[in-house]
Amino acid sequence: MTDAVPSAHAALQPAAQTWFADLRDRLCAAFEAIEGDPASVLAPVRPPGRFTRSAWRRPAGADGSEQGGGVMSVMRGRVFEKVGVNISSVWGEFSPEFRRQIPGAEEDPRFWASGISLVAHLHSPHVPAAHMNTRMIVTTKGWFGGGGDLTPMRLETEAAQADAAAFHAAFKAACDRHHPDYYPRFKAWCDSYFFLPHRDEPRGAGGIFFDHLASGDVAADFAFTRDVGSAFLAVYPEIVRRRMGSAWSAAEREHQLVRRGRYVEFNLLHDRGTLFGLKTGGNIEAILMSLPPEVRWP
Amino acid sequence: MTDAVPSAHAALQPAAQTWFADLRDRLCAAFEAIEGDPASVLAPVRPPGRFTRSAWRRPAGADGSEQGGGVMSVMRGRVFEKVGVNISSVWGEFSPEFRRQIPGAEEDPRFWASGISLVAHLHSPHVPAAHMNTRMIVTTKGWFGGGGDLTPMRLETEAAQADAAAFHAAFKAACDRHHPDYYPRFKAWCDSYFFLPHRDEPRGAGGIFFDHLASGDVAADFAFTRDVGSAFLAVYPEIVRRRMGSAWSAAEREHQLVRRGRYVEFNLLHDRGTLFGLKTGGNIEAILMSLPPEVRWP
Repeated sequence: MTDAVPSAHAALQPAAQTWFADLRDRLCAAFEAIEGDPASVLAPVRPPGRFTRSAWRRPAGADGSEQGGGVMSVMRGRVFEKVGVNISSVWGEFSPEFRRQIPGAEEDPRFWASGISLVAHLHSPHVPAAHMNTRMIVTTKGWFGGGGDLTPMRLETEAAQADAAAFHAAFKAACDRHHPDYYPRFKAWCDSYFFLPHRDEPRGAGGIFFDHLASGDVAADFAFTRDVGSAFLAVYPEIVRRRMGSAWSAAEREHQLVRRGRYVEFNLLHDRGTLFGLKTGGNIEAILMSLPPEVRWP
Repeated sequence: MTDAVPSAHAALQPAAQTWFADLRDRLCAAFEAIEGDPASVLAPVRPPGRFTRSAWRRPAGADGSEQGGGVMSVMRGRVFEKVGVNISSVWGEFSPEFRRQIPGAEEDPRFWASGISLVAHLHSPHVPAAHMNTRMIVTTKGWFGGGGDLTPMRLETEAAQADAAAFHAAFKAACDRHHPDYYPRFKAWCDSYFFLPHRDEPRGAGGIFFDHLASGDVAADFAFTRDVGSAFLAVYPEIVRRRMGSAWSAAEREHQLVRRGRYVEFNLLHDRGTLFGLKTGGNIEAILMSLPPEVRWP
């Protein structure tokens, strides 16, 4: 589909894929190092987790052509109850129905999309869950999107406030290196995006969210997208380490399982990434990897 | 809104509400009787459950007018891990966006809807979960809808097949009393409705599903709708009693919790009733009462 691709984004496709895979490797290594640390609550009674990788391919197109695929990396460990770090590169044609909702796809249904998506659910209710995603999408237009957000179980606690402050500070620093408007804009976007209207409550403590980023300087947009991933890599493992040694009560665990229900409600009722994956024939296990391992609606 | 209501349906509004409340009472009594039966697996170690009722009201309209509400009846027992039997009667105006999807609402946004909705999740993986709903809806048109469906955890077992056969037989008998086409049509509708396209699998063993039933004979449509509720009342408690005494393994329970994930996926991604409730400002706890008490996405 090179004829339909804006040349600057087309030229970046290999570099983007390489970056997403590289970031995946570094994230998985950081999380496995945490699993190996003897300081976590369950360390005395469980072996450290290790990521297992599995590749998937999209079904071939009507003409038998390849349409991409991805690699899921999932770990069920003693700190991370379930964490997935997925990369994928998919291409093909949007369905007529979906086309209207995607910039540049009405003229030509062909698309190319590559990205990384991470969701971490922890055993400990004291460690916030987290989500990070960055992506490059190419239709007749090209853009970047992504962000990261933190989901503490009890927003109001001092610990959760401190974690949220550290998380936001890391993303603010990454944003500020690129444009003074980015952090306030993308923070507000995150707050409005990760919101459950049917509950009238936020999903968590926020972070940043951006989409359709096409400033005109493709290299700068890609550099910003990389910095978002790097900021997450720098701050989230740090937050996990800070909280993973504190024991929790059965009541705190029960509360966590109920809060996870909100996470499921958001992802299945509202999340654009989930919808995108389901509408474009993505791998169902990879898409729903985001769902928590254990949930209660009491 | 009497001016906009088809007179035959308007005349039935009080009788419909009375029927739904009466059916609720009989269903709750049947389920409480099951809880009191000493034959269930958990009976030696847990007290029988009892329904607790809570009423909710829709927020008033822009002009301060009443817009209806409902009563939730929920029981967390020793046979029924969580069962909700909700009735509601709501009225007001559809949002402009929602109006286009509802027969007769484009001309006039006012609606009136009353119904009963039941979802049962059992402790035992040997007892199928069940759902039943019947409703009357009035816009500038009027119609009935509803159905019932059964969700055994392992469709392929002999016991599940026997339960499904009994369940279908009860609904077939109810349908056949009204029209020879009803059962085949409404069974097929159920099969196509309770289907997870993203998993390419049915939610359960089916049952019947009907909507927009307006044969021209309002009394006959109401009688059919009542018979659907009565058929469920006759057959489902019978199925529960038949299976509630058989012990289960930890592996069967784990499998049940994973299967319940499919139930959540269906209800949040696809279910029309859930969407209707959320779009019409229904009570969130009543709408999401359908979600299972404990779920796993391992």
